[in-house]
Amino acid sequence: MTDAVSLIRAKRDGQRLADDDIRWLFEAYARHEVADEQMSALLMAIYFRGLDRAELRTWTAAMIASGDRLDLSSVGRPTVDKHSTGGVGDKVSLILAPLVAACGAAVPQLSGRGLGHTGGTLDKLESIPGFRASLTPDETLAVLAKAGCVICAAGSGLAPADRRLYALRDVTGTVESIPLIASSIMSKKIAEGTGALVLDVKVGTGAFMTSYEKARELAETMVALGEEHGVRTRALLTRMDVPLGRAVGNAVEVTESVQALRGDGPADLMEVTLALARQMLALAGLAGDKTGDPAAAIADGRALAAYRAMVRAQGGDPDAPLSQAAHTQVVPAPASGWLTGLDALKVGIAAWRLGAGRARKEDDVSASAGIICLAKPGDRVQAGQPLLELRADEQERFGPALAALEGAATVSDQGPPPPVSPVIEHVGPA
Amino acid sequence: MTDAVSLIRAKRDGQRLADDDIRWLFEAYARHEVADEQMSALLMAIYFRGLDRAELRTWTAAMIASGDRLDLSSVGRPTVDKHSTGGVGDKVSLILAPLVAACGAAVPQLSGRGLGHTGGTLDKLESIPGFRASLTPDETLAVLAKAGCVICAAGSGLAPADRRLYALRDVTGTVESIPLIASSIMSKKIAEGTGALVLDVKVGTGAFMTSYEKARELAETMVALGEEHGVRTRALLTRMDVPLGRAVGNAVEVTESVQALRGDGPADLMEVTLALARQMLALAGLAGDKTGDPAAAIADGRALAAYRAMVRAQGGDPDAPLSQAAHTQVVPAPASGWLTGLDALKVGIAAWRLGAGRARKEDDVSASAGIICLAKPGDRVQAGQPLLELRADEQERFGPALAALEGAATVSDQGPPPPVSPVIEHVGPA
Repeated sequence: MTDAVSLIRAKRDGQRLADDDIRWLFEAYARHEVADEQMSALLMAIYFRGLDRAELRTWTAAMIASGDRLDLSSVGRPTVDKHSTGGVGDKVSLILAPLVAACGAAVPQLSGRGLGHTGGTLDKLESIPGFRASLTPDETLAVLAKAGCVICAAGSGLAPADRRLYALRDVTGTVESIPLIASSIMSKKIAEGTGALVLDVKVGTGAFMTSYEKARELAETMVALGEEHGVRTRALLTRMDVPLGRAVGNAVEVTESVQALRGDGPADLMEVTLALARQMLALAGLAGDKTGDPAAAIADGRALAAYRAMVRAQGGDPDAPLSQAAHTQVVPAPASGWLTGLDALKVGIAAWRLGAGRARKEDDVSASAGIICLAKPGDRVQAGQPLLELRADEQERFGPALAALEGAATVSDQGPPPPVSPVIEHVGPA
Repeated sequence: MTDAVSLIRAKRDGQRLADDDIRWLFEAYARHEVADEQMSALLMAIYFRGLDRAELRTWTAAMIASGDRLDLSSVGRPTVDKHSTGGVGDKVSLILAPLVAACGAAVPQLSGRGLGHTGGTLDKLESIPGFRASLTPDETLAVLAKAGCVICAAGSGLAPADRRLYALRDVTGTVESIPLIASSIMSKKIAEGTGALVLDVKVGTGAFMTSYEKARELAETMVALGEEHGVRTRALLTRMDVPLGRAVGNAVEVTESVQALRGDGPADLMEVTLALARQMLALAGLAGDKTGDPAAAIADGRALAAYRAMVRAQGGDPDAPLSQAAHTQVVPAPASGWLTGLDALKVGIAAWRLGAGRARKEDDVSASAGIICLAKPGDRVQAGQPLLELRADEQERFGPALAALEGAATVSDQGPPPPVSPVIEHVGPA
């Protein structure tokens, strides 16, 4: 076939794309012989027609082949990474990477920045004075060897086709396609060279996937893709109807992460983090002994030590005071009773409007802006008691944030809501 | 809404686009604030989701509003035009425009060039020495006033949005969408300022629409669009399984058209031409008297006189000899019996390969290349008797053309096929 129009028409009409056609497509796109307007038409056709498992495998392989693939064999420890589809208050990576490193694995976490209402791991770490998120491949390997973990920006050499495709999908209404999401995430993670991978696929009002069925389909698709490319891959479906932990923002989430590494983290955050850590250690072949017990690694200080080593190795000062917001404002409980809901999407949008997130990828974020959830669902509250503490660098941020929080908290006088585990289920190879 | 991504997502998800959104889209596209890659994603979403009647009306109005609209009121006669979706051997315009002009109407036929296996009216006329297809708006009006008809290129000022959209659809696999085809055709015809319009929607192997149902849907859609924009519009569905008439090419079709205007045209060509002429004259309010009878206008020489006047007014010499091909080759009948089929698509592709058509819009066409059908379905043939005469400027054109003609002719010894009228049906407002 090997011309763009025939390829677009074939997919549009529901036909399979042959392996050679997909490889040709990405090579021609790299040479700019397939134009962006042709690729965007194809992406929309894929939105409607999908990619079957074999097409998706080749599509993802072509994205990986568009760039470099890191070789982590020199690290000398089993490598295992985690990817989250993104949530409100999701600071799990900051705790999990050093925790799993403390248990004997090497965690090469190459991350992106936040866009929209969910924060970015790199933005959070950059609120630590001196911390550098942009490392060369050699620096990345050096930090990994020294601290057992590294959290840095994925360089432009990894899956550059994904970078172009993602920018195109963002402006052409073709983001919400399971095969396109799966290949975007997995191409970068496979190119990063990790031996094993655990996916945290979030589902709920504050998640990218609001339906359980779609989240499960995405999880199964990504697990299959990883396994087909030789990466041992599992997924956890976790709830994202309520912010994870209590802090939502950048510096505030670093502070909460350090508390968690000290053994003082909120229950829901610890439950998700430990479940992911156990799964990662199992994939790395390190579960079962004392070293491989993440709860012990927190209790005896090894996890915190790994975190401090990683921050230092990336130029940061783990003891430096973090930026404090100039202004705070409190949102009171609307009624007396039990807090039954605290809408993750609304809290996420409010934190974004306070300055913690960015609307465009070239925007800066505020280190200190954010929200502290002073109560979580299940807690007893009195009308008027402080429920949320909002923090911002400028007073005028509060109005739009408060507007986003309208109706975010629900209170019932019918007794406490039933406790719900944030971990819904594990997804393994079919 | 008024941002491109929201608009694309809305159509993708099956929502209606509001009138204001469609108007905003075309204004922003003209300012290059909506990018081609966004428009192509939207076109693909429209391919899948369609445009309802109200959306299509506004979409077409926005394309018309992107440019000028000719004012033909100075012509002083009722104006009526014809558009054909394109067929093999379709030289109807060359006969019809002067014929209807001879019956008292003014025919402002603004045309495009041929691309692919169907020829273009302008390409055919340009085989007449001196003929100019590119006229200014003033020249167009002057020819129309003098000869009663004009066949020229649609200027770049008419529906420029359609020009950009068509180029985009051509490279993004979004040509085959009924609302997009209908709005493309009708925006230009409405902008041209005609008071009435008859559409020749061809259906069959050699037509753009190979299925009756799709052709009828396109006809109904275009009739509704024309009527909504104040243009009295009707359509005829006509067969395009066999080349129309005997000549396929450029100069050869001019010669056949002149024969037809002299009263010596092949039966199928005359039947289609007269059916379209009668419908046009009815819409123009000119049917019913002697002047308005197209058969009489051919018989008494008025139609031929109008043709000669038009050719002269456009710089052409109607008496100049036409270009002759340097080489000819004959295709013999494969068997004895009755010719039951002569595949229009295969003959069209062969004529194209002989040089009569163009593969890219910047290509030149040969004036003299083409095919003469020496027999038509229903004729009795003897094995080996000449069936097709191929003409080309270069000997090496014959091989590829002959390959395209493989299996084009079917011969049966079971008696003649039943006669079939080339006119299937008339489509009026619902």
